[in-house]
Amino acid sequence: MSESKDTKRIEIRLSGSGGQGLIFAGILLAEAIGIYGDKNVAQTQSYGPEARGGASRSDVVISEDIIFYPKTTELDILLALTQEACDSYYPALKGGGTLIVDSTYVSQVPTDKVYSIPFTRIAREKIGTPVVANVMSLGALAAITKVVKLDELEQVVLSRAPRGTEDKNKAALNEGFELGEKAVKDYRAKFIDAPRRQ
Amino acid sequence: MSESKDTKRIEIRLSGSGGQGLIFAGILLAEAIGIYGDKNVAQTQSYGPEARGGASRSDVVISEDIIFYPKTTELDILLALTQEACDSYYPALKGGGTLIVDSTYVSQVPTDKVYSIPFTRIAREKIGTPVVANVMSLGALAAITKVVKLDELEQVVLSRAPRGTEDKNKAALNEGFELGEKAVKDYRAKFIDAPRRQ
Repeated sequence: MSESKDTKRIEIRLSGSGGQGLIFAGILLAEAIGIYGDKNVAQTQSYGPEARGGASRSDVVISEDIIFYPKTTELDILLALTQEACDSYYPALKGGGTLIVDSTYVSQVPTDKVYSIPFTRIAREKIGTPVVANVMSLGALAAITKVVKLDELEQVVLSRAPRGTEDKNKAALNEGFELGEKAVKDYRAKFIDAPRRQ
Repeated sequence: MSESKDTKRIEIRLSGSGGQGLIFAGILLAEAIGIYGDKNVAQTQSYGPEARGGASRSDVVISEDIIFYPKTTELDILLALTQEACDSYYPALKGGGTLIVDSTYVSQVPTDKVYSIPFTRIAREKIGTPVVANVMSLGALAAITKVVKLDELEQVVLSRAPRGTEDKNKAALNEGFELGEKAVKDYRAKFIDAPRRQ
């Protein structure tokens, strides 16, 4: 993704289970880009039988043009915080798309081209609570995909976080960004800088 | 709207200015119907130049079928909490659609077929804070349009409201429902029960 900055339309799905704060994360991401940044953004939640089963997803579509069709058709970026979400939505990721998973819960990944980070475990260990794994994953997504700037996310996190949780959310965001940067280095070392073996 | 329960697809827009909690209201409405109820729902925020100017809108599409196109095309129901929102979005309301406005801020209404309720003023006077005007307006929307049941809204309000605000939000919801019921009676008396004057 970091090479495709001239892409007109970018489709992102944040997925996992209910209670992981993915709707909140989707709104943060959309506002960071659409209000604090300068692109057009549509952010959608869909509820149906799968939502009643506890699955949760939040889609964000970014475009430099007006968005006539806010539904995702082929994902450029998929964040999956649970195995079920990864299994369900990986088929919707386009070839060459970016997959980011929470390795705390996702153990079986359908490709080796993945950014695998234990968000929930690190949130628990470093920030003291697993509930900021959602915001931490946004930080990583910013570092890995460059669809949003860290300071745009920081502004919206500080304005939207429930009172009293600003510091933890900001710490989670920055920790996530660092984890993302490290994951990019590892990924490049593995797939780009290393001699290619086909 | 209360007569069109067999409509396959219902498009709702909640609109006003940033800070009035319309995105939160959209999520509450969508979850009430999609998770606690049994319809399919897509809920969308769009951000672009108008969002950067301070306007806010949240769209909810309800269907008994899978929703392939989550964007609103012709609104069945429009809630407008500001004059600017009413002016901007009334043209998108279909003929015979339901218009609900907050008469605290909307003084010029483009039709007399309107449910006009001073949500913000009553929220301030009866609940002690204007910030629950969004939830109050959902209660009225439930009474007027019957797209969602009061107890479904109550469940999602209690699960989603920030800790410590549950009681005020529940009170606002119920107050809004009563105001909506009264507005329906007034509307019927004016347009349905009274001798028609063309």
